[in-house]
This record gives sequence, structure tokens and C-alpha cells, in this order.
Amino acid sequence: MRMVWEVLVLMFLAICTKASGGGRLKASSRGCSEAAVDGMSYCLSWRFGVESNNVRWWRTVPPQCMHYLENYMLGGQYEKDLDLVIEEVSTYAAGIVLSDDGMDAWILDIDDTCLSNLIYYRDKRFGCDPYDPIAFKKWALKGGCSAVPAVLELFKKLVSSGFTVFLLTGRDEATLGEATMDNLHKQGYLGYKRLIMRSEAYKGQSAVVFKSEIRKELEGEGYRIWGNVGDQWSDLSGDCLGTRTFKLPNPMYFVP
Amino acid sequence: MRMVWEVLVLMFLAICTKASGGGRLKASSRGCSEAAVDGMSYCLSWRFGVESNNVRWWRTVPPQCMHYLENYMLGGQYEKDLDLVIEEVSTYAAGIVLSDDGMDAWILDIDDTCLSNLIYYRDKRFGCDPYDPIAFKKWALKGGCSAVPAVLELFKKLVSSGFTVFLLTGRDEATLGEATMDNLHKQGYLGYKRLIMRSEAYKGQSAVVFKSEIRKELEGEGYRIWGNVGDQWSDLSGDCLGTRTFKLPNPMYFVP
Repeated sequence: MRMVWEVLVLMFLAICTKASGGGRLKASSRGCSEAAVDGMSYCLSWRFGVESNNVRWWRTVPPQCMHYLENYMLGGQYEKDLDLVIEEVSTYAAGIVLSDDGMDAWILDIDDTCLSNLIYYRDKRFGCDPYDPIAFKKWALKGGCSAVPAVLELFKKLVSSGFTVFLLTGRDEATLGEATMDNLHKQGYLGYKRLIMRSEAYKGQSAVVFKSEIRKELEGEGYRIWGNVGDQWSDLSGDCLGTRTFKLPNPMYFVP
Repeated sequence: MRMVWEVLVLMFLAICTKASGGGRLKASSRGCSEAAVDGMSYCLSWRFGVESNNVRWWRTVPPQCMHYLENYMLGGQYEKDLDLVIEEVSTYAAGIVLSDDGMDAWILDIDDTCLSNLIYYRDKRFGCDPYDPIAFKKWALKGGCSAVPAVLELFKKLVSSGFTVFLLTGRDEATLGEATMDNLHKQGYLGYKRLIMRSEAYKGQSAVVFKSEIRKELEGEGYRIWGNVGDQWSDLSGDCLGTRTFKLPNPMYFVP
């Protein structure tokens, strides 16, 4: 099922190419094949740029990449990319020898790490629309985000193998605290140590600053942060990052 | 020209899909369409994993990805990915206000940053063959690497706008010093401050350790490292990284 869109794109492109006669493309046929390949190609480069932390501070997905991202997010490749990263996380985690003091810690981000906002962003043209804080708050208040399946599975493995798991999110504690906790519990995130949300003191601070401070506090409490997983480079930049960080795919938005 | 391979792949896939009749695939036709799409899809995930620093310590490219990488490296997408990163570098560099003390520094790696080893790796099945230090030394001694065009252009821009550019490489100084310098000069890399290669003291050290030490020394000399560009995460990890780092694409090998 998830291959259908991909195969349709491939067939469309092949038909376009055939229609151009295989020779030098005429201006009139260029719009069909070469431009389509060029467009996909640009969006692939852009996605590489974002995911490798080269492209920063972007506000919206380039408009010409909307259909590319739609296919990427819904057509199966996003899940595959994510699953491959989680496999790496699992392999790494399985190799850690835990001590019995309960101080072997792990940090997971929430939005588009533990919980998926894909349904919300589908209506925001996969990030082609600018960030809308009011609409996002309304969405988050519903508490209806699905778990990201591979991350939920990882979470359960981490908890059952004895890691002390912290959920660390830039979501506002005062307004979204209850809805977020309910959402997490309903989706099966049970057994974590602490849900750490943005308190009044960190309002207006960047995620890098806020999350660095929290990780520093955790290390100050004596925790050894073995792993740190997030979909934003701001989850994985700054201080006290943990022994290893893992970047999940997310080409839909950028959090500084 | 560079689109030919890509379009051929797309047509092949489309023909395969047509041949399968669009219904439920029979076992016999699976080898043609679905498996081909699955294969490309896996290799794309693997490349994402590598470029985002999630997949580490790999020794060879997964054998099933050889044709994917051949297409990626020679079919145009690699250059596009690289060009987009270099555009980001240029935009960032153009925004820096330099002082007139000559201490505004920039670091560039050499292999597959300043100079391309693509011809060498083409014969090593794009990284599907394991690293062969003797063969690579022989290749490097020839001093016949081409400049990576976008990086050479960036280098010239950096030098002409007043940055003090350091070329920092893990290549062995004693054996490859002369050939490397000749190669760089012949390709147009002129006007850098210092070519820093691996001296006897750093033999056997990882690139992360060696390059961190060198950057620390440069900072100790008073240099302000504004930018740091390399194709390996080991160029961009460790200490004194510089204000901003940029990861160029390279899915062919991993340097720890």
C-alpha cells in the first residue's frame, strides 16, 4: 500500500520521459520530465541539508517541496528512516552495562519523537505553512497524538532494561502539562522517571539553552546520560548531551 | 547528461511495475519491482543514517547499496547535495564581520572536501570494498585528485574575503606531505595559511582526537575559528569545533 504513491511517481516520470522521445528535450516537454526530476532532486538535497544540521533557522518548507514531503512522510520512507535510526539506538543501548544504582539515564524528546504530530502537520501542508502557535496549542490540548511506534517500543525496552528515562520537552508546562501527560499515558508511555516541561523560568529561551540547563541539572543529581534522542538538532546541541545522541528524521519544522 | 541514469532507473521501475499488472504481485515478479523499490528505499535510509551521524563505525557500504551509491555519486545528486551545503556555508561566511588582525580563521578538511577521491572509490565499488591503506596511499602519492569544484570556489572566496584558512587532514605528513601539497597547489588551492597533516606524534590517534588537539592549538594561538567544513563527522566532533560546522556528503567511507 505504502509503495503505491512512490510507484505512481516513478511511472509518471517514466511516461513523461518516454513522451519526450528520449532525445534532446523540447522546451514544451521540459515541464513534464526534467523539471519533475530536478524538483525531486532539489528537495532531496534540501532534506539532506536539514537532517545533517547544515540548513538551519528555516521557517517553512520550500513550497516546491510540498508534494515531495507529502510522499516522504506518508509514502513509507519517513518510517523506514526512523526505524533504521531506532535500530541503531537499540543496538547501542543493548551494549551498555548498567549499574544497579538507578542512575543510568536516557533522555527522549516528546514532539515527533515520542508522540507524532503528523496529522497536525498534514493540515499545515507538511510544514509549508508557517508555524502557528495558537493552532498548535489547540492541537496539543486535545491530547490526541499517536505514539511514534518505533519510539514507543524503544521506550518500553529502555524502561524494562533498567534505564531511568526522562521525557524532556519544550512544551509549556502551565498550559499543556495535563494534556501532555494524559496523552503520553494513553499511548503507553508508562514507567518514565520524570516528565520535564518548560517552566515559567525558561519561557522565551531557545530549546538549546533550556534543554542544556535541564541536562546539566540531571548530571548534577548524579545521572549518567547514556543516550539522548530527538527529532531536532536543538535537542542534541549544547551542553551535557549524553554519551551518544540520535537524530530522528523531521523535515517539517525547525526548532531553534 | 547526469539525469540519464536516474531516468533509466525510473523507467526500469515503471516497466517492472506495469509488468506486474498492478494487482497483487506474484512471487516471480516481486524480484523486479517491489524488491527494487525496497532496495532503493533501504539505501536512502542508510544514507540518511550515515549523514545525520546516527550510523557510526561502519566499515563498508552495505553490498546491496552499490548501484544506489554509484547512481548517487555519479548521477548528479551528490553534487547537488554538496552544492546546497556550500551555498549555506557561503551565506554564513558572507555575514561575518572580519576584524583586521588576521585571526579570523576557517578550517577545511582535505579528502573529499578540498580534493575528490571519487575516481579511487569508483574502483573500490563506492565503498563496498573494505578500506585498503596500501592502495589508498599509492593513489594519494600520485597527487592526481581533482578539486571538489564547489569547495575550491568557496576556498577562493574565503581567502579573498580575508579569512585565514587552515587545511587540516589526517593524511600522514612524512609519506604524503609533498604529494598532497603539490596536488593542492596544482588544483588551485593557493593562499591558505597552513597545511596541517598528521605528524608522528598523532600516529594511531583517531581523527577526533588529532583534529581536536590541532584546533585547540590554533585557538591557543589566538585564532577565532568561524567555520569548519568536512565530509566526516570526525572532522566536526570533539573540542574547539568552531562557531559553525558543515557536513559535506560522503556515504562511501567512515573515518573514526
